[in-house]
Amino acid sequence: MNAPLNIADLHDAVLAARVQHRLDHLTKPLGSLGRLESLALQIALVQGRDRPRLEAPQLVVFAADHGIAARGVSAYPSEVTWQMVENFLAGGAAVSVLARQHGLALTVADCGVKHDFGARDGLVDAKLALGTADSSREPAMGRALCEQAMDRGAALLHALPGNVLLLGEMGIGNTSAASLLMSRLTGLPLAECVGRGTGVDDAGLARKLAVLGQALTLHAAAVEPLDALAALGGLEIGTMAGAVLQAAAERRLVVVDGFITTAAVAVAAALAPAVLQRCVFAHASAESGHAGWLKRLGVQPLLDLGLRLGEGSGAALAWPIIDSACRVLEEMASFDSAGVSEKLDEPA
Amino acid sequence: MNAPLNIADLHDAVLAARVQHRLDHLTKPLGSLGRLESLALQIALVQGRDRPRLEAPQLVVFAADHGIAARGVSAYPSEVTWQMVENFLAGGAAVSVLARQHGLALTVADCGVKHDFGARDGLVDAKLALGTADSSREPAMGRALCEQAMDRGAALLHALPGNVLLLGEMGIGNTSAASLLMSRLTGLPLAECVGRGTGVDDAGLARKLAVLGQALTLHAAAVEPLDALAALGGLEIGTMAGAVLQAAAERRLVVVDGFITTAAVAVAAALAPAVLQRCVFAHASAESGHAGWLKRLGVQPLLDLGLRLGEGSGAALAWPIIDSACRVLEEMASFDSAGVSEKLDEPA
Repeated sequence: MNAPLNIADLHDAVLAARVQHRLDHLTKPLGSLGRLESLALQIALVQGRDRPRLEAPQLVVFAADHGIAARGVSAYPSEVTWQMVENFLAGGAAVSVLARQHGLALTVADCGVKHDFGARDGLVDAKLALGTADSSREPAMGRALCEQAMDRGAALLHALPGNVLLLGEMGIGNTSAASLLMSRLTGLPLAECVGRGTGVDDAGLARKLAVLGQALTLHAAAVEPLDALAALGGLEIGTMAGAVLQAAAERRLVVVDGFITTAAVAVAAALAPAVLQRCVFAHASAESGHAGWLKRLGVQPLLDLGLRLGEGSGAALAWPIIDSACRVLEEMASFDSAGVSEKLDEPA
Repeated sequence: MNAPLNIADLHDAVLAARVQHRLDHLTKPLGSLGRLESLALQIALVQGRDRPRLEAPQLVVFAADHGIAARGVSAYPSEVTWQMVENFLAGGAAVSVLARQHGLALTVADCGVKHDFGARDGLVDAKLALGTADSSREPAMGRALCEQAMDRGAALLHALPGNVLLLGEMGIGNTSAASLLMSRLTGLPLAECVGRGTGVDDAGLARKLAVLGQALTLHAAAVEPLDALAALGGLEIGTMAGAVLQAAAERRLVVVDGFITTAAVAVAAALAPAVLQRCVFAHASAESGHAGWLKRLGVQPLLDLGLRLGEGSGAALAWPIIDSACRVLEEMASFDSAGVSEKLDEPA
């Protein structure tokens, strides 16, 4: 880039130098805390202060149904979406257990589940429709509905306290929507973007590929990120993309989970690339395609635990490491303050 | 193995089947929690019960000095060992911060630090000598001292409460001792076993390799694991090896940190291979050689965060993931109990 440095860039450069100086004088060999050090630096830059603090982290599970699920692309029936929402609210899902372990506030956002939950503690009503249309036959949402979903996501996020958003999702059929978005946004062939999701067998995988191929062909003109999202995406993915853009604008840290949440972040980043500076990618999912997508985005996941559950489970598992990064920066002694000898210039 | 199944093996097989059955009926696609599921199964087998509980986890930092440090193999002077022990006790080191974050009891075991600490809260006196002799010129410990150190480690561990031991260490010069043990135990050439430790430069690395080569040649006859440990190891490594053997015998889970703690576990496993069944390897260190050693041992680390600090920092960082494994097994709902539909046999 040949653009002149602007004030914000200068501010960031000075802040980064200050944080790096502190990291380099803590009681440890230079750079020996690896990813923890780069995380601490990133979070300082997200927050624009040299002693970043993580406040009231919010794990939001964006949930919706998918018309394309009727084409037999998932190993589970659509009603599992609302049943799992009930499981989240009752505290019995993996993400419920992990959020409880780490003191993460857990909110379920109903972005379009085909079920009437009524008013419930822990559930936010952001529903615009009872699921998407089948994108292999018509646009999943259309531009107007898609933009409404994004607006709801932004409003939902803005109303939440704290300075960290951890992304989660639930929606039978949503690995299909994410695969379609991956193929369209990256230009990679569908076969590199499609996996077994919740666990389809070989016949199911072949069917999934065929159905998704129809959707891509039908919406060949949906090339711009918002058009692609509207035609191929899901209500939870659109709502999440809006929440991510809002979170980034508010300098909140965004902790990305697996394949589906990466789809929402990839759409947001296609609209505003700086979004990625606000994101920590929690893990490389075992869902085929995810690792390749992260590579394309130029980001490195924190964990690689063979997870392929979604829900925000990987984001929750990565949370204590992100917390650790801030704590070591804040709480560790320096060589000076602890009276520890510095590195030798000459061998002893 | 053609040996007949014994009762213990049968018991384990039945227990494993019971735990796997529960894992397979929790509200998640089969196997979708990846490493968390294999961890939960391992811990159940370590504890011999299908609902394992992690109680009063103990992080012990084994500390000692090394005669070989006088040969200029480290980037830091030997007094950093006792200075860092003071830092642990004052709560300013990385491992202090991480242990505090996760509620891990932190004990420093003085196994042979060249310093008089007096009686101190959080410090256990297990000192047998003011550091080892220089193994490039004479045996580091000799068999009698080495066995005494192992006995102290076993006694120290036995006196601690709880059912989890997290390993940490401190000792300027101890990557040299660990490299020597790696080369001797695995048969790999020294160059594949030696790294920069706390950060020696190219000249320092060449010097380290030359000095360690002298030690290996001098003690060419020290082939048996205990002989190798006595000739080439360190007081903290010997004490730790004793603690690991005792912990395994008491069915405690052992969380292994980086390169140095792997040396202690490798010695223990050379004496009693079943020790590895009790161990979780927290991370692959950035110290050259560690990843290769883990591969040789046939184990897979949980994290890969570019850490090379030691102290038990990687073990502490992995702790919440190990905790999560037990919590999901204990607290998640099953498909039945949550009323969630099971996988489709036929596509929807």
